[in-house]
Amino acid sequence: MSIQIQRKKTRQVSVGPVKIGGNAPVAVQSMTNTFTHDIPATVKLIHRLEAAGCEIIRVAVPDMPAAEAIRSIKNQIHIPLIADIHFDYRLALAALKAGADGLRINPGNIGSNKKVKAVADQARDYGVPIRVGVNAGSLEKDLRKKYGVTPEAMVQSALRHVELLRSFDFHDIKISIKASDVLTTLEAYRLLSSKTDLPLHVGVTEAGTLYSGTVKSAIGIGMLLYEGIGDTIRVSLTRDPVEEVRVGYEILKALNIRQRGPEIISCPTCGRCQVNLFSIVDQIESALMNKTIPIKIAIMGCVVNGPGEAKEADIGIAGGAGQGILFKKGKVVKKVKEKDLVKVLLEEVEKIEELRN
Amino acid sequence: MSIQIQRKKTRQVSVGPVKIGGNAPVAVQSMTNTFTHDIPATVKLIHRLEAAGCEIIRVAVPDMPAAEAIRSIKNQIHIPLIADIHFDYRLALAALKAGADGLRINPGNIGSNKKVKAVADQARDYGVPIRVGVNAGSLEKDLRKKYGVTPEAMVQSALRHVELLRSFDFHDIKISIKASDVLTTLEAYRLLSSKTDLPLHVGVTEAGTLYSGTVKSAIGIGMLLYEGIGDTIRVSLTRDPVEEVRVGYEILKALNIRQRGPEIISCPTCGRCQVNLFSIVDQIESALMNKTIPIKIAIMGCVVNGPGEAKEADIGIAGGAGQGILFKKGKVVKKVKEKDLVKVLLEEVEKIEELRN
Repeated sequence: MSIQIQRKKTRQVSVGPVKIGGNAPVAVQSMTNTFTHDIPATVKLIHRLEAAGCEIIRVAVPDMPAAEAIRSIKNQIHIPLIADIHFDYRLALAALKAGADGLRINPGNIGSNKKVKAVADQARDYGVPIRVGVNAGSLEKDLRKKYGVTPEAMVQSALRHVELLRSFDFHDIKISIKASDVLTTLEAYRLLSSKTDLPLHVGVTEAGTLYSGTVKSAIGIGMLLYEGIGDTIRVSLTRDPVEEVRVGYEILKALNIRQRGPEIISCPTCGRCQVNLFSIVDQIESALMNKTIPIKIAIMGCVVNGPGEAKEADIGIAGGAGQGILFKKGKVVKKVKEKDLVKVLLEEVEKIEELRN
Repeated sequence: MSIQIQRKKTRQVSVGPVKIGGNAPVAVQSMTNTFTHDIPATVKLIHRLEAAGCEIIRVAVPDMPAAEAIRSIKNQIHIPLIADIHFDYRLALAALKAGADGLRINPGNIGSNKKVKAVADQARDYGVPIRVGVNAGSLEKDLRKKYGVTPEAMVQSALRHVELLRSFDFHDIKISIKASDVLTTLEAYRLLSSKTDLPLHVGVTEAGTLYSGTVKSAIGIGMLLYEGIGDTIRVSLTRDPVEEVRVGYEILKALNIRQRGPEIISCPTCGRCQVNLFSIVDQIESALMNKTIPIKIAIMGCVVNGPGEAKEADIGIAGGAGQGILFKKGKVVKKVKEKDLVKVLLEEVEKIEELRN
C-alpha cells in the first residue's frame, strides 16, 4: 500500500540550514522548558532533543540574560535556534545579535510600528525569518469585538501582522495560528492556507497532558497534514519536550509523510495471547529507541493470526506457549524459543540495518 | 466556540441495552486481554474498564471453556459483552447460549454457508447482532488476487459477508474493516460508508505501542469521526485496555462529540514558567481521573499569558514564583500561594460539581 499525501506548495524560508516550505520535508520542532539563561541545562536538553530527531529548537526569551545566553547555547548545539519574544522588541534585537536563526513574535504585542520595523530591519540584515505567531487566547480587541474568538478573527490577525512586516519590505515569514481547541485550530489553518502561500507552522496550543495532548495534536496536526497543510510541526505537551518530538514523528510516520526509525505494529493482545506481549514490546521499543532506520516491525501475540495480519511488516515475531516464530513479509522464517524472541528479532534488525548501509 | 460535527445517520442495532448507530452516542468499547476462561481475572478487568467508561466489552472465545465462561462473567458485570469468534461456528453457538450480547465473526473463516446460517439463525433467535469484522491481513484469496490488499478488496469482503448474512434473513449487522495502516483504514471506511447504511465499528488494528498506537488511533478514528463516519470505536493499544478507553474518550472530547470527565488544557511550559507544572498537572489529573463531570480546566505556567490564553476554560490556575492565581473564564478570581494551587483548584472543581448536581 503506498497512498501518498499531496502537500500544498508554499514559499520557502530557511531557519539556519533547515528549509521550511516549498518541497522541503515537514520539519519537526520543539521548545525548551529550561530557563534559557541556565545555559548548561538548556544545552543538555537540546542535545537530548537532537538525539530524538528535533530539527529546530525554540527558546523563550523573557529577559536580556536569556537573549544573551543564545550565543553560548548556539556554540554548543547542532540545530537552528528560534527566539520566542513577547512584549519587548529590544529582546528581539538582542536575540538576533546573539545569533538566533529565527524569531517568533506576535507583532501585536511588540508595540508601535516603529518597533516592529526595527525588528524587521535587523532580521532582514541577518537573513533571519520571523514567525508571526497568533494564539486564539491573545487576539486584538478590535478583532475579538468584530468576529469573536473565531478562525476568521485569528486569520485576520495573522494577515494583518504579515502585511505590517511586508510594509517594511520583510518577506521571510512563517505563520502559526493556534488554538487549544482542535476544531477551531483546523478551521483557522484551512482558512489561512486558502489565503496565503506563506509556509505554516502547525500545532495545537496548550494541548495538555500526555493522553489529551497526544490525541489533540495527532488529530489536529494529522488532519491538516493529511489535507496538505503544514510545513513544520510542533506538538505541545505538558511533558519532557523529547516526548513532543517523538509524537511529532509518530504523526508523520502514521501519515506516511516521513519515516524515522522503526515503526512497530503490535496487537493489543487478547485471550488468545500466550506470552507477555507488553513486556516484549517494551523491551524492543526501548532497544530500538535511537535507531533511525525506517523498518516496519510486527510484534504479535499469537502464531495463528500474527504473520498473516502483519504481512506488510518487514520483519516480525509472533508469540506462542514456549515457542514463537520469526517471520518476514508474512512468511515464517523459523521457530524461536519464547525466551529468545526479543534477542533474535533485535539481531535480525541489526542485520537488515547492515545490509541497507 | 461550538463547532459541531454532523454524523452520518446509520441503521441502529442494539448490543444488550447499548444502541449503536442512528442517533445514539458514539459508544466506546474495548477488549479484554485476560484468558476468558479465567473468570475472576476477566471480571476484575471488566470492572476496571467499566469505571473508566467502557460501554461494551469484547472477549476472545478461542475454545469451549471460554464460551462457557461467558455466563458467569455476564452475571458479574454491568455492560454488554461481545464474543469474538474465529474458525469454529460451534463456539459462536455456545457463546450465544451462554448469554453473549453480540458476536464478532469473520464469516469467511467460519466455514461453509451452512455453518454461517446456523450462527445467523441462532443469533436472530436470541436477538443478538453480529459484527462482520474484516481485517486487511486476512482477506480472501480471490479478492487479494483481484484487488491486492486494498480498500476496495476490504470493502468487497465486508459486503460479501453482509450479503451472506442477509441471505439468511439476518439484518442486525455492524461492520468493521480495519488495517494497521492509517491511510488504508481511512480509505476503506470511507468507501464502505458510501456503500452501506449499516452502523460501523471504527478502529485501526494492531495500532501498536502507547505512542504510535495513540497517534494512529487518534488520526484514523478521529478523522473518520470528523467526517461523520463511525458509530462505535475501539482504540487498539498493546497496553492495559483501560488506556484504550481513556484514549477513546480523549478522541471524542477533542472533537467535541462526547464529554466525559474534565478536559485539562495545560501549557507545555517554557523558560517563562516558574513552577513545577509537570508535577502540578500530574497531581490534578490523578485526583480527577474518575470524575465524570465535563469541565474545562486550565493549568498554565505563567500568570502573564495564562488566564488570557485559557479564556475558554471554566476554571484554571496559573503559576508564579511563590504566588499564582485562580481564574474563571479568563478572569482572575484570587491570588493563591504556590503551594496551595492544587488544593484550591480541586476544591473549586468540587464546588462546581455540587452546583451542577
